[in-house]
Amino acid sequence: MVDLIAALRSAIGAAQVRTDPDLVAANVVDWTKRFEGATPAVVRPGTVDEVVAVLRLCNERRAALVPQGGNTGLVGGSVPLHGEIVLDLRRLDALEPVEPRTGQVTAQAGVTIARLQAHARDAGWMYAVDLGARDVATVGGTIATNAGGLHVIRYGPTRRQLVGVEAVLADGRVIRRLDGLEKDNTGYDIGQLLCGSEGTLGVVTAARLRLVPRPAYTVVALLAFDSIDAALDAVGVLRRDVDAIQALELFLRSGLDLVCTRFELPRPFASEHEAFVLVEAAALADPTDALASAVGGVNAAAVAVATDDVAARALWRYREAHTEAINLEGAPLKLDVSLPADHISEFMQRVPARVHAIAPDAAVWQFGHAGDGNVHVNVTGYAHSDHPVTAAVLEYVAELHGSISAEHGIGTAKRPYVHLVRSPAEIATYRAIKHALDPFAILNPNVLLPEAG
Amino acid sequence: MVDLIAALRSAIGAAQVRTDPDLVAANVVDWTKRFEGATPAVVRPGTVDEVVAVLRLCNERRAALVPQGGNTGLVGGSVPLHGEIVLDLRRLDALEPVEPRTGQVTAQAGVTIARLQAHARDAGWMYAVDLGARDVATVGGTIATNAGGLHVIRYGPTRRQLVGVEAVLADGRVIRRLDGLEKDNTGYDIGQLLCGSEGTLGVVTAARLRLVPRPAYTVVALLAFDSIDAALDAVGVLRRDVDAIQALELFLRSGLDLVCTRFELPRPFASEHEAFVLVEAAALADPTDALASAVGGVNAAAVAVATDDVAARALWRYREAHTEAINLEGAPLKLDVSLPADHISEFMQRVPARVHAIAPDAAVWQFGHAGDGNVHVNVTGYAHSDHPVTAAVLEYVAELHGSISAEHGIGTAKRPYVHLVRSPAEIATYRAIKHALDPFAILNPNVLLPEAG
Repeated sequence: MVDLIAALRSAIGAAQVRTDPDLVAANVVDWTKRFEGATPAVVRPGTVDEVVAVLRLCNERRAALVPQGGNTGLVGGSVPLHGEIVLDLRRLDALEPVEPRTGQVTAQAGVTIARLQAHARDAGWMYAVDLGARDVATVGGTIATNAGGLHVIRYGPTRRQLVGVEAVLADGRVIRRLDGLEKDNTGYDIGQLLCGSEGTLGVVTAARLRLVPRPAYTVVALLAFDSIDAALDAVGVLRRDVDAIQALELFLRSGLDLVCTRFELPRPFASEHEAFVLVEAAALADPTDALASAVGGVNAAAVAVATDDVAARALWRYREAHTEAINLEGAPLKLDVSLPADHISEFMQRVPARVHAIAPDAAVWQFGHAGDGNVHVNVTGYAHSDHPVTAAVLEYVAELHGSISAEHGIGTAKRPYVHLVRSPAEIATYRAIKHALDPFAILNPNVLLPEAG
Repeated sequence: MVDLIAALRSAIGAAQVRTDPDLVAANVVDWTKRFEGATPAVVRPGTVDEVVAVLRLCNERRAALVPQGGNTGLVGGSVPLHGEIVLDLRRLDALEPVEPRTGQVTAQAGVTIARLQAHARDAGWMYAVDLGARDVATVGGTIATNAGGLHVIRYGPTRRQLVGVEAVLADGRVIRRLDGLEKDNTGYDIGQLLCGSEGTLGVVTAARLRLVPRPAYTVVALLAFDSIDAALDAVGVLRRDVDAIQALELFLRSGLDLVCTRFELPRPFASEHEAFVLVEAAALADPTDALASAVGGVNAAAVAVATDDVAARALWRYREAHTEAINLEGAPLKLDVSLPADHISEFMQRVPARVHAIAPDAAVWQFGHAGDGNVHVNVTGYAHSDHPVTAAVLEYVAELHGSISAEHGIGTAKRPYVHLVRSPAEIATYRAIKHALDPFAILNPNVLLPEAG
């Protein structure tokens, strides 16, 4: 290892290979402080050629690396939990001008999502992926994890913004597809394969990304329903009949009660209801009439429409305050899952009983992105240092053919559960692809794939 | 081979393993009649289990297969040019009801695009991929080739409609991701890897596909410009400022002259212009005002707006008549390429000289999908049984960092040119993935990848 560090220093400059524990402290722990490791060195290449040099050296010496962007992941996928070298990509932060004929932009891996968004906005476009970690999360990290966020129902996750990537493979070979070709059916799409691979198949150093038109008008409405099923039926009609919908959020009576009590918010409706759908439509032309017409057809028990920004923010507050209100109940166990459309209702109704069978005093809070089947399950009043509740919830998700990782990824945290939702044939296929691209398993070898044996 | 055929007959029934030359005639030649091969047998499984049985037998005996759907490809990728067995998937034609909450549908590989479109329409949705071969092309074939078509600028190619696939790997193992999870960051996305792989990595037997809202209003306009660059600049502004645009087609003065002369069409404009952009906007709310406003900002030399269906069809006729008019000039050499946005104009202006250097008497016709950089180059008046013009055009495409195969794929026809646009590192990566998933190279082994050696 001493030899390798000397070689790395010689390749990219001594100052960019950090071993001082004070200097590497922020690189070895995730931002939630749940995952903390240790590393012999944090390597900070400033050019693609330096990334190539680093990977060649590590591949020759069979030294494992954890690629790292903003380190905002939630599943322990970007910290050195097994003594790996950290490959910090934030110095690769070049951002090219927006190409005006296509609305595409080339960004290096270390560019933050907030910077990319502002850059797109300045050119009259919008980068469609938005998420809470935008100020820190990077282009490279969001590609490696196929980040979702707030607008998946309208624009899809990061995968759908990706026109092409530049990436360095384990042995230092470079794949470069940054020419912005919307149509290019020539060989396998390596960018799509790397997207969501959590740094296990290659190191994304830059990407060509698609921007979308920036909506000029936004309309928000809150709909109340007397059952989860009625709410989900309405979601389908709204998706079909309003092409401008960019958010469809679901929450329940218990969550609304909690946020109204905790934050002394006015009740949105005089009557009591079981389920609520927050819908946001945004377009270049005012979508108010289209939304009003569609809402008229879905049999909501009650409807509140925001006619200005202040009112829109007030409606959003009922949904957004969930996280903060739940945290005030005690540090929650958070599980990010998704369900097939026809099992969401069953899951949300029955998962509390599954939790209570193990933790009778726990409280279960659920809310989510109704449009894409993503349910956030939060459990408070439960000592979650061990995993029986996690296992019970994820096993139930698997029974209902859902995803144990809707948008956060597998990382380290969910490796023990991959076998619940992927067949031996699929896992063997993943391993074959991993071995084909990274035969010495130097790239993030301790995430995503189940442990062998 | 006799043994294998007997084993196949025993596995899926004698009637579904065809060897009679009359019965297999349609399976061994493509619809353009340019590619004709021969096969020991056409195998027609009716269930996924039968596909599994066929692949296991072929894998054990190292017998190569060509998967085949509607056989509407243009690059010789679905016919047995090297004596392969044909795996005809059209009997897998089940089509499930549209899931109303998500607007998703599960279709088996043999379902035609036209049937899928009608099925979506009946449920109030739309399948976004549309192409001329819709009545014959199949779900499986369009996934294997990542088919593009008329609406790529709005909805993307087939890749973007794909929620998940069911596929059988070379050794008979089955991957099944049909639960319709919009968010599922769990492992590598095998469906995305198979999409566009031209049947070389696995056999897609079914897919879960995303539908989109069905537009209620359609507006069409034809814009004239005095240069290709002015037209392309306008395309960028229209993309940014009108979110409902679903087609942006480009053609040139020479093409307009040809179609007006051939078919005695009235001239769309009194004045003469160099380049024309046909724009179609479609939305649930009437996009006329948004389009009119945006068109006002792009400095077109002349504008014609269709205010009813008859007028819209008349404007489309100028673009759509190109293929027919060119065919009347003589059987054309057709090249489907795409260019980066800032090289389209240069390419279109200079490619005639490249062609004339080799074939002085040839005529060059160009038109395309301006929104996605796709240019169709047609060459008439040239004996194109050999390939110097093809090579010259594709070499020029490669110089300008374009794609030698925008939407048609590589198949057999473009294998000799892949090295022009893919680095040795990329080709080696493709080979590694191919070997990982199909170690005995039984799946369409004579397409897509350059010949070894």
